[in-house]
Amino acid sequence: MPVPAHFDRLRVVLVATRNPLNLGAAARAMSNFGFPHLRVVNPYAVAFREARSAVGAAALLAKAEEYATVAEAVADCTLVVGTTAVQRRQLQHPLQRLEQGARLIRRRLGSGRVALLFGSEKVGLSNQDLSHCHWLLRIPTREDHASMNLGQAVAVCLYELVRQPRAASKAEKLDLPPAREVERITTLMFDVLRDSGYLNPRPSAASQEKLRRLVRRFHLSTRDTATLLGMLRQIHWKMRSVTQTTE
Amino acid sequence: MPVPAHFDRLRVVLVATRNPLNLGAAARAMSNFGFPHLRVVNPYAVAFREARSAVGAAALLAKAEEYATVAEAVADCTLVVGTTAVQRRQLQHPLQRLEQGARLIRRRLGSGRVALLFGSEKVGLSNQDLSHCHWLLRIPTREDHASMNLGQAVAVCLYELVRQPRAASKAEKLDLPPAREVERITTLMFDVLRDSGYLNPRPSAASQEKLRRLVRRFHLSTRDTATLLGMLRQIHWKMRSVTQTTE
Repeated sequence: MPVPAHFDRLRVVLVATRNPLNLGAAARAMSNFGFPHLRVVNPYAVAFREARSAVGAAALLAKAEEYATVAEAVADCTLVVGTTAVQRRQLQHPLQRLEQGARLIRRRLGSGRVALLFGSEKVGLSNQDLSHCHWLLRIPTREDHASMNLGQAVAVCLYELVRQPRAASKAEKLDLPPAREVERITTLMFDVLRDSGYLNPRPSAASQEKLRRLVRRFHLSTRDTATLLGMLRQIHWKMRSVTQTTE
Repeated sequence: MPVPAHFDRLRVVLVATRNPLNLGAAARAMSNFGFPHLRVVNPYAVAFREARSAVGAAALLAKAEEYATVAEAVADCTLVVGTTAVQRRQLQHPLQRLEQGARLIRRRLGSGRVALLFGSEKVGLSNQDLSHCHWLLRIPTREDHASMNLGQAVAVCLYELVRQPRAASKAEKLDLPPAREVERITTLMFDVLRDSGYLNPRPSAASQEKLRRLVRRFHLSTRDTATLLGMLRQIHWKMRSVTQTTE
């Protein structure tokens, strides 16, 4: 999947992260979704050191930039967005649900750097951290259990940034058999079912039509049609040969 | 955020998970997004025990159901979806990007249970696991680094299921058979094909998996499943009775 060039302008900013596993997980998700630039503000020293060995994200972590304050970490960005699990009523900032917020971020990445801030595992972003933000982003979690794991929150936000709203439509390439082949299956099945006693020796037209409709509902591909034909021929042959021996 | 009632019908199925942190993280994301039902297949015993103390998801993990095989874990589901990081060309299943796949899952949750399978951290889902699936889901990660952390993959998939617009809307009413019934068809067909000589007396696991995938591609309704089962039982009985007479 090609990554849009302007994704290069996003700065994921992890503030006061404590757990090296979360740092590593955040970096891995960034690598998965094609956002190469990580900034860390005042991380626990041990966490940062240990995280550098995280699976599949070592290169990204090695290039991570370290800052002492949020102000410095976001200084070159034209939009600063904080993430929060808190509901609107307790906040002094505009709040966007992730679906809409990601759209705004994508648009802004066209013209300049955007910082996306994630707070520490225990307390999130402080009021001082938040004061640097233009607005806040909320992942639509349940009110009863709103707070996400840090690495998972980063993954979900970045996924929303890369997801394609209209990937849906794309025409499908289907490989479908001609009706003649599907009818061959119908005929063979009909014979086998008669030989087995499932159908009368002289089945009604209605029962053949029923079978025909059944086979059409399978939506067989060309390949599956060939496979099924092979199977039915063998069953048909075997049944004929054994019934003739015993008759 | 209110959770649509039919989200209760999703079964997140973790197969052979090794790391208790991933089990815990998956459970936490399920709780965050309002999907209460976790099933685990053959997890490492220690992992499962340790995960039960995971932050914020203890209740969900305590209710998790344990199964020995994928077949049992999905038996009561009408749609079985596997997750993969692999590109289309290496797969024998239809592949959906998460954006479209989630829409299909949401629609199906209107009429029955849906199983969403995640494989182990090291190797993902095996070919045998995959043969139980109707189709596969792929998160749109970069080709160069496609494989996500398990807990993050679960979070991203569930987020796509709950995200607006229209997350809550149209659930389809379809009449679909549980996987158990579809597996019965597979087993009977397998026996008939062996008796007929289409398959070896001792068929390989691969040929059983191929047949299992074939049957899933039929998209059988409950009624067609019952009809096919009746047909196969009769063919099976007939073939057994005549071959025994002649042997």
